[in-house]
Amino acid sequence: MADAWLTTLITDTPQQGFELAIALSRRGVKYTQPDAEVLHKLRPEYSTSSHELTAASQVIAINFQTVAAANNYWRK
Amino acid sequence: MADAWLTTLITDTPQQGFELAIALSRRGVKYTQPDAEVLHKLRPEYSTSSHELTAASQVIAINFQTVAAANNYWRK
Amino acid sequence: MADAWLTTLITDTPQQGFELAIALSRRGVKYTQPDAEVLHKLRPEYSTSSHELTAASQVIAINFQTVAAANNYWRK
Amino acid sequence: MADAWLTTLITDTPQQGFELAIALSRRGVKYTQPDAEVLHKLRPEYSTSSHELTAASQVIAINFQTVAAANNYWRK
Amino acid sequence: MADAWLTTLITDTPQQGFELAIALSRRGVKYTQPDAEVLHKLRPEYSTSSHELTAASQVIAINFQTVAAANNYWRK
Amino acid sequence: MADAWLTTLITDTPQQGFELAIALSRRGVKYTQPDAEVLHKLRPEYSTSSHELTAASQVIAINFQTVAAANNYWRK
Repeated sequence: MADAWLTTLITDTPQQGFELAIALSRRGVKYTQPDAEVLHKLRPEYSTSSHELTAASQVIAINFQTVAAANNYWRK
Repeated sequence: MADAWLTTLITDTPQQGFELAIALSRRGVKYTQPDAEVLHKLRPEYSTSSHELTAASQVIAINFQTVAAANNYWRK
Repeated sequence: MADAWLTTLITDTPQQGFELAIALSRRGVKYTQPDAEVLHKLRPEYSTSSHELTAASQVIAINFQTVAAANNYWRK
Repeated sequence: MADAWLTTLITDTPQQGFELAIALSRRGVKYTQPDAEVLHKLRPEYSTSSHELTAASQVIAINFQTVAAANNYWRK
Repeated sequence: MADAWLTTLITDTPQQGFELAIALSRRGVKYTQPDAEVLHKLRPEYSTSSHELTAASQVIAINFQTVAAANNYWRK
Repeated sequence: MADAWLTTLITDTPQQGFELAIALSRRGVKYTQPDAEVLHKLRPEYSTSSHELTAASQVIAINFQTVAAANNYWRK
């Protein structure tokens, strides 16, 4: 992946930070399975399984810990 | 999701922080599966499985770590 | 849940902190499945499965990280 | 559990800290399933499953994070 | 493994840090199963399973926490 | 286990720290199942399963967080 997709962990708001955490979680999947077509075929499988949805939410939570710490928790 | 649902991680009490952690956990699911009807159908599946309930509690625990740190653990 | 069940993360001893971590783990389950009768029926299922018991212990460990940090690890 | 089993997280050595992490992991199980006989019967099940052994090692790793931080990583 | 493959956790950019987190995740697998041929045979299995891809993304997220902290989150 | 196998978390390099994290992960298994023969029999099971290999890599990642923090991330 030659393109620059992650230049900073700093975001303006916690919500943008949460969305960055989602992007990081998806990148972790894409680095492991770069074939977009394969990923597309898997989507119905995991997006209709409560087990997989909870697992996805967990990865987001872990990445959000990182992003939130980077932003000093957006304290004012 | 255009609406602003997360403007701060700061809460008045630890209990509100725990409830924010629950909201974050659910958002992680909703971003992955935005279709409310699909989520509604999955509810009986995970809410009556001890395995899924423990997994849900784990995601909440991870998000609570973030919220608690943001609030400096509500120390006085 | 209108009642105040979590007013502080501070405890006198590490053991009370561990018990608070257990309480947090159970609350995470109860918020997801508030029906006490359903939870009661699930109890035999998870409390006799080594897999579920290890998973429960893991959620407690994650919550104990939070409580221990809040208490500055009860260092004297 | 009325007895005092956890009065401090401080240990002399990292190895004692690791053993405390094991004790915390087991306590998490015992609080969830207090019946020693049931636990005894489950032992062959999880101690001969690589999946369960890895899961047990993970809970120990999480608790060791807490104990190690409490001891300031036993730095001299 | 006699070669030096990890001499620093410091990277220039968050993206390089994320890629280091991926490398650490793969090393964790390789240390457990050093046989490249076996690993090669397993690749179709995990790279086409949403469950395994989410699990892989989770390990990356955990290692990224470490790398990001090491780099003080690439704050300027 | 009467022998002293863990006297410090400090290592010279990040790579040695990663290898210590692997050692800690294996110790967590050995404390739970001390019988070397049983562990030996389980080896083919987990070392040829992508699910178990990812799980093993995750425990290493968690222990590496601890070791890296102990070493202040080997910053110079």
